[in-house]
Amino acid sequence: MNAHTTGMRQKLEGIIAITPFARAMGARVREVGDGMAELEIDVSPELMLQHHGYVHGAVVGFMADSACAWAAASLAGDVVTAEYKLNLLAPAKGERLWARGRVLKAGRRMLVVQGEVFVVDQGREKQVAVALATIAQVGAA
Amino acid sequence: MNAHTTGMRQKLEGIIAITPFARAMGARVREVGDGMAELEIDVSPELMLQHHGYVHGAVVGFMADSACAWAAASLAGDVVTAEYKLNLLAPAKGERLWARGRVLKAGRRMLVVQGEVFVVDQGREKQVAVALATIAQVGAA
Amino acid sequence: MNAHTTGMRQKLEGIIAITPFARAMGARVREVGDGMAELEIDVSPELMLQHHGYVHGAVVGFMADSACAWAAASLAGDVVTAEYKLNLLAPAKGERLWARGRVLKAGRRMLVVQGEVFVVDQGREKQVAVALATIAQVGAA
Amino acid sequence: MNAHTTGMRQKLEGIIAITPFARAMGARVREVGDGMAELEIDVSPELMLQHHGYVHGAVVGFMADSACAWAAASLAGDVVTAEYKLNLLAPAKGERLWARGRVLKAGRRMLVVQGEVFVVDQGREKQVAVALATIAQVGAA
Repeated sequence: MNAHTTGMRQKLEGIIAITPFARAMGARVREVGDGMAELEIDVSPELMLQHHGYVHGAVVGFMADSACAWAAASLAGDVVTAEYKLNLLAPAKGERLWARGRVLKAGRRMLVVQGEVFVVDQGREKQVAVALATIAQVGAA
Repeated sequence: MNAHTTGMRQKLEGIIAITPFARAMGARVREVGDGMAELEIDVSPELMLQHHGYVHGAVVGFMADSACAWAAASLAGDVVTAEYKLNLLAPAKGERLWARGRVLKAGRRMLVVQGEVFVVDQGREKQVAVALATIAQVGAA
Repeated sequence: MNAHTTGMRQKLEGIIAITPFARAMGARVREVGDGMAELEIDVSPELMLQHHGYVHGAVVGFMADSACAWAAASLAGDVVTAEYKLNLLAPAKGERLWARGRVLKAGRRMLVVQGEVFVVDQGREKQVAVALATIAQVGAA
Repeated sequence: MNAHTTGMRQKLEGIIAITPFARAMGARVREVGDGMAELEIDVSPELMLQHHGYVHGAVVGFMADSACAWAAASLAGDVVTAEYKLNLLAPAKGERLWARGRVLKAGRRMLVVQGEVFVVDQGREKQVAVALATIAQVGAA
């Protein structure tokens, strides 16, 4: 990790600190680089589950959306999500979720980003969702 | 409201009661019928906002996904979201969110559902998101 | 129809005239207004079908995408499709397809548009697809 | 290439032979394996372009959708596309298009497939689109 990525990590941690929903989820930066970002959360059963006992799709969606937006932010500064599509691949059962975003195309005002969400269940990892997002630079919509 | 829709409402309220994330959001059934459902939540700033002060996209996604899943459940019983796409149309600033899901096509095992999310800001209503979802009957994936 | 919509129709017809793929499909403007557009084609079996004898999804996609882009163009001038999602609702069997695009949100650089595609089979109409598209003004991506 | 993949290739070529739209596009199987498929076409300017002189988005969509459906068919037999999302990453200018589909998740009745479309321009290759599709086994919708 160099000064550049350390700066990006601090910036994301600063955004989490002023984002109540991300704080409520306990979001932590796992990795960040030019055009990529990873975050993770611990699963809190009393907050995050749905009625079959799996992690709620909205929490999986939060992970995917955040990973995509953060990956875009690593290249484009302040951003907002314009749209995303999320395919849920498997029930999310486990103690931890993590997600990765990778920028596929960085346009001047819009970035296309792929997201992937994984669950860790008793140490074993499984992909639970894939996403494709369009992220806009703030001021560009 | 007749016995049929009263039964559907009670069933959805029963699902909310055993869904920790929906309870944490304070989700309430607003309306339910054959192939449609509406829910609403009060915006809790210390839980639901993002760093620009608007309602976090994950909460908007929760509203869209829940409305679509509930609309599907009104026809198909126990369901899971297979995938959805969400377009964010405007920042969600206000005191209340509500969402509506309407089934566009009910197949034997998959339902296509449209979702819309609205914010109420000092009594004025504005659409903040539109969604298109594929919902699967449990056991059908 | 007034001078304004007549002008928009002529502009779309001018675009079709220089768009080889649209000409190959036999696309015709059906209706155009501020933030909406409709087009139609006759189904050519020797060109447009897939292996079950229905209209190929790519032709349905062409209809949805064109209707969305044209609806956006009615407000924003020269545009390109940034992304779309298409849900196929029913097999497209019939003699004619038509599609409608309606702008849901016109931002400064991006427009969110809903598309619907219908088939006409021996005079009876059925919806075969729904789409949600993000259209960008040329120069804005 | 073994007897198994040779059989899959022949099956796809058989499907192309009875699919008028795929024949009109000149679609050829490039590669096929368990859960993956690649196809290619030569760009025919008088058929496939749009009004900026690039390959029409509907042709790009055909490539993405076909690659996804064929990849799914390699595992699941006869299939139909339930839905897909397509992000256009760059204008498609060149002499040839090719696309790859890879199955991310094969459920009993639905498969989630990622698609990528590339253009070859004077021998240089560039990705022009990415897609995420839900493909259903025939009889499962």
